[in-house]
Amino acid sequence: MRNFNYSITTTILFGKNKIEVIIPEIKKYGSRVLLCYGGGSIKKIGIYDKLLALFKENSVYFVELAGIKPNPRVSSVREGIALCREHKLDFILAVGGGSVIDASKAIAAGVPYEGDVWDFMIGKATVVDPLPLASVLTLAATGSEMNGSAVISNDETQDKRPMGDPALRPVFSVLDPEYTYSVNKWHSAAGTTDIMSHIFEAYFTPDSGVLVQDLMSEALMSVCIKYGRQVIDEPKNYEARANLMWAGTLAINGLISYGKIPGDWATHMIEHEVSAIYDLTHGAGLAILFPVWMDYVLDAENAWRFAQMARNVWGVKLADDMAAAKAGIGEVRKFFKSLDMPSTLKEVNIDGSHISVMAEKATIFGPVGSLKKLYSKDIEEILKRAL
Amino acid sequence: MRNFNYSITTTILFGKNKIEVIIPEIKKYGSRVLLCYGGGSIKKIGIYDKLLALFKENSVYFVELAGIKPNPRVSSVREGIALCREHKLDFILAVGGGSVIDASKAIAAGVPYEGDVWDFMIGKATVVDPLPLASVLTLAATGSEMNGSAVISNDETQDKRPMGDPALRPVFSVLDPEYTYSVNKWHSAAGTTDIMSHIFEAYFTPDSGVLVQDLMSEALMSVCIKYGRQVIDEPKNYEARANLMWAGTLAINGLISYGKIPGDWATHMIEHEVSAIYDLTHGAGLAILFPVWMDYVLDAENAWRFAQMARNVWGVKLADDMAAAKAGIGEVRKFFKSLDMPSTLKEVNIDGSHISVMAEKATIFGPVGSLKKLYSKDIEEILKRAL
Repeated sequence: MRNFNYSITTTILFGKNKIEVIIPEIKKYGSRVLLCYGGGSIKKIGIYDKLLALFKENSVYFVELAGIKPNPRVSSVREGIALCREHKLDFILAVGGGSVIDASKAIAAGVPYEGDVWDFMIGKATVVDPLPLASVLTLAATGSEMNGSAVISNDETQDKRPMGDPALRPVFSVLDPEYTYSVNKWHSAAGTTDIMSHIFEAYFTPDSGVLVQDLMSEALMSVCIKYGRQVIDEPKNYEARANLMWAGTLAINGLISYGKIPGDWATHMIEHEVSAIYDLTHGAGLAILFPVWMDYVLDAENAWRFAQMARNVWGVKLADDMAAAKAGIGEVRKFFKSLDMPSTLKEVNIDGSHISVMAEKATIFGPVGSLKKLYSKDIEEILKRAL
Repeated sequence: MRNFNYSITTTILFGKNKIEVIIPEIKKYGSRVLLCYGGGSIKKIGIYDKLLALFKENSVYFVELAGIKPNPRVSSVREGIALCREHKLDFILAVGGGSVIDASKAIAAGVPYEGDVWDFMIGKATVVDPLPLASVLTLAATGSEMNGSAVISNDETQDKRPMGDPALRPVFSVLDPEYTYSVNKWHSAAGTTDIMSHIFEAYFTPDSGVLVQDLMSEALMSVCIKYGRQVIDEPKNYEARANLMWAGTLAINGLISYGKIPGDWATHMIEHEVSAIYDLTHGAGLAILFPVWMDYVLDAENAWRFAQMARNVWGVKLADDMAAAKAGIGEVRKFFKSLDMPSTLKEVNIDGSHISVMAEKATIFGPVGSLKKLYSKDIEEILKRAL
């Protein structure tokens, strides 16, 4: 096990009607709120009205930034920064899924920064004294509610880039599983795929002797398997929604990656390039790419790890590591199919025309991946196999 | 899943030589330190000299409270409180196992409190503005390094009572697995038993539909099984010591109990009464009592939970829940025996002479346990069966 510093400071307010307690939590940090959200879903499910009533009752001043899109754009972020400066806002409340929370993190970092916020995405700026932010989560997927990472897209350059700093962890996040009842089949499935993918990224590193992290990761994978289909068929099943929501948070808050190389992340980097150009749902892109990545990187040296997953998570009984590993990857493929996720790029109308550009962009800062280093030619091959 | 608030604020500095970074961590909170420790082991393994050098180099004023015993006495706590007041100390550093950390928590709570510190143990006082404390852990066992709980003994009254408050969580804890290399076979085994018991307490509640918590708990049990014997046979095996140390912390920091009734805890309450009178090693007492408790409370209604553990953790294949449950309890008994822990009170020279007193004291605040409520007559029966 590698040395690590564990510090997960976000308070999670989990369960039914937890939104009722947020005002004193907000007031610990600020009194003038930027309320960020996406489309109209928070109005449809009643969160918007609830928040407005709470703000009114408690005399909380707020300004709205609506319309934050999936794969959130840096243009929305810039708009949010301008609003915070203009209205002297001191707190950001993100209400939505990962995109809204990610945009809010970039706004939080950008307000006290003099240059353009895209600088954070290209490593030109570091986060200093960001505004405090919190979230009310409406989608079990990205885990952004309990970590300091964000991914922002740039329309002009067709780039999609991560940024991150521990200081960008939300100070609190409300996780009310009932808010996810209205998430449609497609986004429920894509969310579960995203959660599973985060666990895969943490799990598939060259580390050995990290049984605590391994078994915790396998536990969270089993939760996705148990409830992934169920939330599609029974969208209002509280047990299923609650377990997936909590698993999604724990999958990427540090718990399963501390003590190891902090993940592989090659597949996410590749998917970012695909969805930067095609605006594909992130989870769907991962469902297509992860099994292909697994097949591509599997070798004699790392087969034991794939085999361990196969046996512990998917019940594969084969004694030979390589055979078990391949069977396990087959199970992953079947699982994503069982969620009605696509398994080829063709199914989502993506052809091979931008493959070399995507492969180049994914490796713009050098090779990606820790289980196996991938160069642009590797990524080209993975994308071709995914067609 | 039940509603919960998750807030685990302790920073963990995990790994080799992490003690090197503690000075700036201490200085975030204070500058005049009460250094608490037990016997001479911290001198033997070099932590004491290392700390003194660090304090000297960085001009940190400190006062020592040495000699804190296993099952820490309220007399030591009172001594620590007096030292803090006399020397105007503003920070407590506990160096040792759970006893030293527990005593330090009681000191931290007691310094600003006007009455006698035992008031916290009898519910007469609540924790307000405790001194900040931190720990350097030398034993994988109690998990005190990342929670707000403490157990203190009173020589005069032969009482052993818990106290707790989130504000008593250490602000940081150093977990260097190498510090546990010199722990002897007996205490290594008792430590693993203690960890396993904490997982049992969190696991055996009436809750269902809590798969995240269940599978995480089972993951931590499997870690104890994998490495419990190994640390006895190979005391300097870093992998084994590191996995057990981290499992011990996660077993009782809230992670596996949030979202449920916060544990059963009957077995711990019973053991506290035994070790209050006999000064038995806590883990050894638990090894004797837990299988007896399991047999006693097992019934048709809760057999599914024992069966789930049996199948997921111990590989029991029986289809019938009751049969699987009994087989699982048999495995628990075998596991503690494999660690050379005692399985009867007789083996540790305890006879039946105080059974009714212990049973009365264990239920002084009412019946104990959440999986099944136990009254004094139940506890008498459990203790008799444990003889």
